[in-house]
Amino acid sequence: MKEEFRMICDYMENCMRDMAHDREHVWRVLTAAVDIARHVDEKPDFRILTAACLLHDVGRQEENIDPTLDHAAVGAEKAYRFLTGIGWTEEDAGQVRDCIAAHRYRSGQPPQSIEARILFDADKLDVTGAMGVARTLMYEGAHNEPLYLLHPDGTLSEGDLPGEESFLHEYCFKLSKLEPRFFTDYARRIAARRMAAAEDFYHALREEISESCELRRQLFEQLSE
Amino acid sequence: MKEEFRMICDYMENCMRDMAHDREHVWRVLTAAVDIARHVDEKPDFRILTAACLLHDVGRQEENIDPTLDHAAVGAEKAYRFLTGIGWTEEDAGQVRDCIAAHRYRSGQPPQSIEARILFDADKLDVTGAMGVARTLMYEGAHNEPLYLLHPDGTLSEGDLPGEESFLHEYCFKLSKLEPRFFTDYARRIAARRMAAAEDFYHALREEISESCELRRQLFEQLSE
Repeated sequence: MKEEFRMICDYMENCMRDMAHDREHVWRVLTAAVDIARHVDEKPDFRILTAACLLHDVGRQEENIDPTLDHAAVGAEKAYRFLTGIGWTEEDAGQVRDCIAAHRYRSGQPPQSIEARILFDADKLDVTGAMGVARTLMYEGAHNEPLYLLHPDGTLSEGDLPGEESFLHEYCFKLSKLEPRFFTDYARRIAARRMAAAEDFYHALREEISESCELRRQLFEQLSE
Repeated sequence: MKEEFRMICDYMENCMRDMAHDREHVWRVLTAAVDIARHVDEKPDFRILTAACLLHDVGRQEENIDPTLDHAAVGAEKAYRFLTGIGWTEEDAGQVRDCIAAHRYRSGQPPQSIEARILFDADKLDVTGAMGVARTLMYEGAHNEPLYLLHPDGTLSEGDLPGEESFLHEYCFKLSKLEPRFFTDYARRIAARRMAAAEDFYHALREEISESCELRRQLFEQLSE
């Protein structure tokens, strides 16, 4: 296991590039998965779970280069080829592939196996709380998306403009709505505990922006007098 | 003034590219400056102050392309050439140039005129509070810098590793130490009021990371048994 673990880690570290999905993200997902595994009734296969966690984002770079690609689908195939290449059976590598393919489930087939559900929840936990806010902001910065947008009348959009891509949109439509998406009760409880930090940050940010918008409205009124 | 204001805005909008220093940053700086101006005894020249605020970051793109350049020095010269080009006197354009050149003062000549001190404080206010946290994270993401680094023993670095560039370094060595750097009492009071949001976020983030580091330490202990 130890030599194998090292080989999988090396392959993973070679594949990770962007700072919202760097190797530290992978370690957090792995440790959260091990923690969740301790608190669920159905016991996962740790070898499958560990490989699935370590390799779940190896398709990120391909999606960053070509956004029409889905990093979950690309990563599932890359992981399968890598694992069979280092001697895994097709069946075991196939289980890891299924976990990775389902870790970004939005529609279609949800995660099936206990390993797939734990990976999903562990990955989702990393977008909760202060960590979720931090990673989303880093992602927006790296993808040149703005913090917020304003309505034509100068008031702040809470992510509600058509086609809006901004941090406030991500927060209002994704980060604040994660709770029902968890598969395990344990992960849902951690998410609920972390939520306050994200909410407090969002409200403070919104207040600071709104203050500035109001000052700007006053300034423009003066300028147009 | 209105036609001139529009021309300066158009020039500014053409120069702004990165999302931590986009046009919304410029508007926040301008509105904060107007707000500060209302609360200081020495009254600034609003035409000089407005132009200095709108144009203070027009040298950012040059620094992003060549990090050896100082955007304050580049921007000061660009703004001077632009303003004299649209008919400003050399004296007025020179006052704007001086404000922009000093807005990033770290050593050497501090901001002198009241307009320069207000621009400095207004710009600095935009790195306080939740806004400061958000913009710093976006900047780190855009510049491929990590959220945090770990010591060799797996514990979290609070920005203390040699040459560390990370969000935690920025927070511990810059964002949390802004208060003495303001020139006006009014801006310092706003900064103090906003500080709690940044501190709360930092502490929540640090706790989440530390929890994950501890789980990781336990996992590695198991793996090495």
